[in-house]
Amino acid sequence: MPHSSRTQATFPPPIPEAKRWLEGVTFPADRPLLNLSQAAPMDPPPPALRTFMAEALGQTDTHLYGPVLGQSGLRAALARDWSQHYGAPIAPENIAITAGCNQAFAATIAALTTQGDEVILPVPWYFNHKMWLDMSGVQAVPLATGADLIPDADAARALITPRTRAIAITTPNNPGGVEYPAETLSALFDLCQETGIKLIVDETYRDFDSRLGPPHDLLSRLDAHNTLVQLYSFSKAYRLTGHRVGAILADQSLLREIEKFQDTVAICAPTLGQKAAQFGLETLAQWRAEQRDDILNRRQAILDHFPPLAAKGWQLLGLGAYFAYVEHPFAEGASSLAPKLVQEASILILPATMFVPQGDPSGERQFRIAFANVDRLGIKEMCTRLARLDWPLAAPPTPA
Amino acid sequence: MPHSSRTQATFPPPIPEAKRWLEGVTFPADRPLLNLSQAAPMDPPPPALRTFMAEALGQTDTHLYGPVLGQSGLRAALARDWSQHYGAPIAPENIAITAGCNQAFAATIAALTTQGDEVILPVPWYFNHKMWLDMSGVQAVPLATGADLIPDADAARALITPRTRAIAITTPNNPGGVEYPAETLSALFDLCQETGIKLIVDETYRDFDSRLGPPHDLLSRLDAHNTLVQLYSFSKAYRLTGHRVGAILADQSLLREIEKFQDTVAICAPTLGQKAAQFGLETLAQWRAEQRDDILNRRQAILDHFPPLAAKGWQLLGLGAYFAYVEHPFAEGASSLAPKLVQEASILILPATMFVPQGDPSGERQFRIAFANVDRLGIKEMCTRLARLDWPLAAPPTPA
Repeated sequence: MPHSSRTQATFPPPIPEAKRWLEGVTFPADRPLLNLSQAAPMDPPPPALRTFMAEALGQTDTHLYGPVLGQSGLRAALARDWSQHYGAPIAPENIAITAGCNQAFAATIAALTTQGDEVILPVPWYFNHKMWLDMSGVQAVPLATGADLIPDADAARALITPRTRAIAITTPNNPGGVEYPAETLSALFDLCQETGIKLIVDETYRDFDSRLGPPHDLLSRLDAHNTLVQLYSFSKAYRLTGHRVGAILADQSLLREIEKFQDTVAICAPTLGQKAAQFGLETLAQWRAEQRDDILNRRQAILDHFPPLAAKGWQLLGLGAYFAYVEHPFAEGASSLAPKLVQEASILILPATMFVPQGDPSGERQFRIAFANVDRLGIKEMCTRLARLDWPLAAPPTPA
Repeated sequence: MPHSSRTQATFPPPIPEAKRWLEGVTFPADRPLLNLSQAAPMDPPPPALRTFMAEALGQTDTHLYGPVLGQSGLRAALARDWSQHYGAPIAPENIAITAGCNQAFAATIAALTTQGDEVILPVPWYFNHKMWLDMSGVQAVPLATGADLIPDADAARALITPRTRAIAITTPNNPGGVEYPAETLSALFDLCQETGIKLIVDETYRDFDSRLGPPHDLLSRLDAHNTLVQLYSFSKAYRLTGHRVGAILADQSLLREIEKFQDTVAICAPTLGQKAAQFGLETLAQWRAEQRDDILNRRQAILDHFPPLAAKGWQLLGLGAYFAYVEHPFAEGASSLAPKLVQEASILILPATMFVPQGDPSGERQFRIAFANVDRLGIKEMCTRLARLDWPLAAPPTPA
């Protein structure tokens, strides 16, 4: 295909590429594979939810198309949940249901931008955000973050041009793990409101935030919907990845635009998944809290077992939600070390080259560790294996 | 939103718009609503399939992400089904699974085209095809068809420019109902092969073709995959609309491009729907044949009950799959008659303005009737009600 196309404007999806590193590799019985590559639950939903879903298959409408923007019951349940969590009144009419949060982002970008526009993304970024902007003919403008991985509103301001349509952030962050402080979101919101662009906040990992209470107050702001677009996923909290359900909170006029995209690309999110999500919202608050405790426990395990790694020159840059973001001490780059880690340590983690602009040197220095699927023992084992690596070290940085 | 966006480049989805015509309308008990607006089954899948799905909920992987391009079992089952139906060897590696056939089209266009390209669409067209081309920055080049609604390859040839990337057709046709003759597909294929563009064949309604055997021989052609992209839906034949499963048959290099789109917009098609589709392919051939008989029976009912309408000046332009495409005899246009039909005859059908370029006069002369959800009695009743309308007639055309 010599002619260029939208898909040819971007790179191959990283997860399938990483899975190919596993092909043909045999793992020793005493060193089984630790797969920390993907942010996806590997266990089924709780029994009550599975029973509910089996019963729902007995209802005719479970097998039919629903409204393009989602079932009214689910939109209402999510409005109640968000109203309660954020302490701000959210109307069902401001919510659209999508087939997962990736689709929520894609639909939002299609409704906000056109060829040649720009969207600001903090670095490191979620690769599917970058891929969709590439495919949309929209320039992803990288917003560098410091050692704390937190974006700065003043730095963002310097990047805004007449073509800028939005700043898109993910908090808790994928891949960085960091939970953006409320003041960071507040400053970014003010900047967006002042400059007439949108602040897109992807809260896929909201349910695993280590902080109690609402993570920001943006929904209580005057004219919040004119500036804020908030995205959510039901995949993680209720283990519904395979059922494809996500959501968008936005201004109604934007949702009417999003309806065009959803009708054409999805018709509607899967009906059974929507019913399951509603059941989860209405009955599984306790279970959701236990899932959060479980993830926070694994997060603590990373902290507990990191010191031997730190002693070997590793740095923990970000930690939270499903992710640790780390800097390695080796001379070789992360992109070639990653397949070597599979072969020599039976560990699959993603090199940061997948999360930064091409040529950004941090990509070869860092890794994302998606720890949510590995228990405390597994996390300890991973740290032990990484600390044991005797690969050549990078030269220490020259003092300035 | 003063700034234009991808979604603002197209029109609102027609089905939700048509549903709004029903709001606030009360239907007399002796004249209930006949909804012939949407091509979607309204009954659940057969009991064996529902039982299978309930059992599948007991398997962990039903709740997880699967491969971006679809489950290997379903790809293999569809390859066997297509190989048998078309008498040509189809490999699973040439098949991708999508969340419905709309998404199959969207992914294909994203992999083939970029801003400013052109795709030729016969008129009348399927509105979601037109909408996605609009949103993609691709010009939909209308290919006029004659009274028989069949596109002509020579007419298509005259429309090809250096920016043309594909001709996209739907057969059996939505909205026209017509089954394109094998010679039509053959001539279009030859044209595409000669000019180095793709022929996209949307076969959503393949299972309801009135002809026995393969509807074309394109899959047996030399280098078929270099020219042909064939799309399919599991929604109709197995009543799986709410579970969102479709498919693409294409060259492997094109599927690698499509994988980028699917990863970013869908991650994967819903897993339960994919399992259900595979079960359907492998065990429900007899049931599928009965569904086809049922639809063909309803198609015959249109023929049987059309004469009183013909006597009142209606014309039947196309008939097949789920659709009849008709010309009405009235002075007023179809777009304003459609809501009036809801109020005065309790009939919901779509005006052809939804299926033709803006300003094309055929739009106001014609309607699409989606008859698949209405039984023989209902079809007779619809024809009776339409024949009874005493609205002012259009002036007869002046002889040339």
